[in-house]
Amino acid sequence: MGSIEGERTTVGWAARDPTGILSPYTFNLRNTGPDDVYIKVHYCGICHSDLHQIKNDLGMSNYPMVPGHEVVGEVIEVGSNVTKFKVGEVVGAGLIVGSCRNCRACKSDIEQYCGKKIWNYNDVYTDGKPTQGGFAETMIVDQNFVVKIPEGMSPEQVAPLLCAGVTVYSPLSHFGLRDSGLRGGILGLGGVGHMGVKIAKAMGHHVTVISSSEKKKKEAMEDLGADDYVVSSDETQMQKIADSLDYIIDTVPVGHPLEPYLSLLKIDGKLILMGVINTPLQFVSPMVMLGRKTITGSFIGSIKETEEMLEFWKEKGLSSMIEMVKMDYINKALERLEKNDVRYRFVVDVAGSKLDDHQ
Amino acid sequence: MGSIEGERTTVGWAARDPTGILSPYTFNLRNTGPDDVYIKVHYCGICHSDLHQIKNDLGMSNYPMVPGHEVVGEVIEVGSNVTKFKVGEVVGAGLIVGSCRNCRACKSDIEQYCGKKIWNYNDVYTDGKPTQGGFAETMIVDQNFVVKIPEGMSPEQVAPLLCAGVTVYSPLSHFGLRDSGLRGGILGLGGVGHMGVKIAKAMGHHVTVISSSEKKKKEAMEDLGADDYVVSSDETQMQKIADSLDYIIDTVPVGHPLEPYLSLLKIDGKLILMGVINTPLQFVSPMVMLGRKTITGSFIGSIKETEEMLEFWKEKGLSSMIEMVKMDYINKALERLEKNDVRYRFVVDVAGSKLDDHQ
Repeated sequence: MGSIEGERTTVGWAARDPTGILSPYTFNLRNTGPDDVYIKVHYCGICHSDLHQIKNDLGMSNYPMVPGHEVVGEVIEVGSNVTKFKVGEVVGAGLIVGSCRNCRACKSDIEQYCGKKIWNYNDVYTDGKPTQGGFAETMIVDQNFVVKIPEGMSPEQVAPLLCAGVTVYSPLSHFGLRDSGLRGGILGLGGVGHMGVKIAKAMGHHVTVISSSEKKKKEAMEDLGADDYVVSSDETQMQKIADSLDYIIDTVPVGHPLEPYLSLLKIDGKLILMGVINTPLQFVSPMVMLGRKTITGSFIGSIKETEEMLEFWKEKGLSSMIEMVKMDYINKALERLEKNDVRYRFVVDVAGSKLDDHQ
Repeated sequence: MGSIEGERTTVGWAARDPTGILSPYTFNLRNTGPDDVYIKVHYCGICHSDLHQIKNDLGMSNYPMVPGHEVVGEVIEVGSNVTKFKVGEVVGAGLIVGSCRNCRACKSDIEQYCGKKIWNYNDVYTDGKPTQGGFAETMIVDQNFVVKIPEGMSPEQVAPLLCAGVTVYSPLSHFGLRDSGLRGGILGLGGVGHMGVKIAKAMGHHVTVISSSEKKKKEAMEDLGADDYVVSSDETQMQKIADSLDYIIDTVPVGHPLEPYLSLLKIDGKLILMGVINTPLQFVSPMVMLGRKTITGSFIGSIKETEEMLEFWKEKGLSSMIEMVKMDYINKALERLEKNDVRYRFVVDVAGSKLDDHQ
């Protein structure tokens, strides 16, 4: 950490353009305001949406961009109004670092749906400066968007919970799908999907993984504990579980037909979309009407739900399956993630990496 | 009523082929079984789905076909097990005349979602014979699919409630949308739409009619009591009510884009599809995810909900807006219905019509 014209600096790894290649980047951080928590980043997970952002897939990217929104670190300084966090504590930060705190969403503790939410990177903060993410030595985050990591939890294991974990936990909790005995489908076994299996199993559900190939069957059943595994292109397998699922967590991040999956749902079943897909998804109305089925979606989770989910995770003694890498591997990791070649989440050991050769 | 080889006959108006022209048709009716209610039809509403059926739009039509599923009539005979209904009482029947009575749907009193439900026409009954609808002198219906019309209700007014009315009432009730003060949208002002305005207003909602043109504005506001009226092609009007609605009852029976309407919904808002549309409907996933919005649909209502709705209708002193016609006008009425040229539901005065010149 250094200082440029009275402001402190930090070093992270940034994409400079839509090629999405990350390289060391030194940038300014605001000084710790009254409500701020200054965090030394220990670990940061890599999420599929980071790929969309660095490559400008959504057409809204600004560079240089330091991605990363599954951040676990240690408090190194707190502002004068901060009473919830102390120096030395392990904390987490996720995708949202600001919201209006005044709208219906904010007042209902679902600030992730606030129309004025501030993304932790590729956005503009209240001071007019760009936000930058967790692939950096330090971050500064408003205390309202920081969560305490319960004692005894392994910090690198926790990183993927802060986006992938709560992304699954939130809709199951919100849509009344926590009861033991429910039958759930997890469509797509990537970072979010693997969390889906873990969390749904811990809730006592019968979990069917639905995948495009046989490839992950053994690991889904043996390593993750899924109860069933169905290949979506196999009509006989699909037919066998028709009308049987209470919900499907659909993690597929590219265009796909919805009808084959709607047909797996029971009456009143819910298809919950998790993938940001800008090509249109299609269905015919009788498929939903004649079983009162629901197509819905959900976006990460609130800070409150994140705290709840961390307690749930700890109480159930769960563990995530991660591949830990150093920062100098991140471009290779992103390349592998694009091919879905990871079991199941990359986590960057930020504090254990040399971030800038030139420092 | 006559008799052919020991079975009794009745006369109705049937379509003979996909031209959908109805003409007098004499057919057999089973004798009154232990659980049957034999009904003299007084009135029968004309629903848009009758048009789909007589013209074989869904590719599943069998002829001759006597349509009509908003039936009000008088009990003229009951089977030995029937205790709920007495000769002379006014009763109603709707779209469903049978179900398995054993599945989760049947046991949860949502028998309209039973996989083995029997449609009141264009289906095959448990005795292997075709079912025929309400544009006929008499009908015979299992007591479990007959509703009592509360005393004091005008029978011709009641007819449209048995499909259009309960079609709107059921999802509002089921999806937790009965609270006074909610803001609802009614998309499309046909038979179901006009019931939507009436019922939503009676629940104490702020109701916005969304229509393709200005044409029905005056009647929507003045005759039906809508609070607001928005032309869907007018971007300024649509923008003005963006993010403001708790739900939209979407009654449009042909393909249409969903995104303009999803954008009118609040966080957690629900788009409820009522139209059987076999061309795909489209949306992009962020439109639902980023507001946790729901696309769902609903199919008529249960017998229990129909009874509830009739009580609600009576208690609130509501009236439907109908155009009463005789049977010999039905082909013209169907033609006008296809052009949406009716305010808002045709009801055939079956008992007051000469059904068969040749009888």
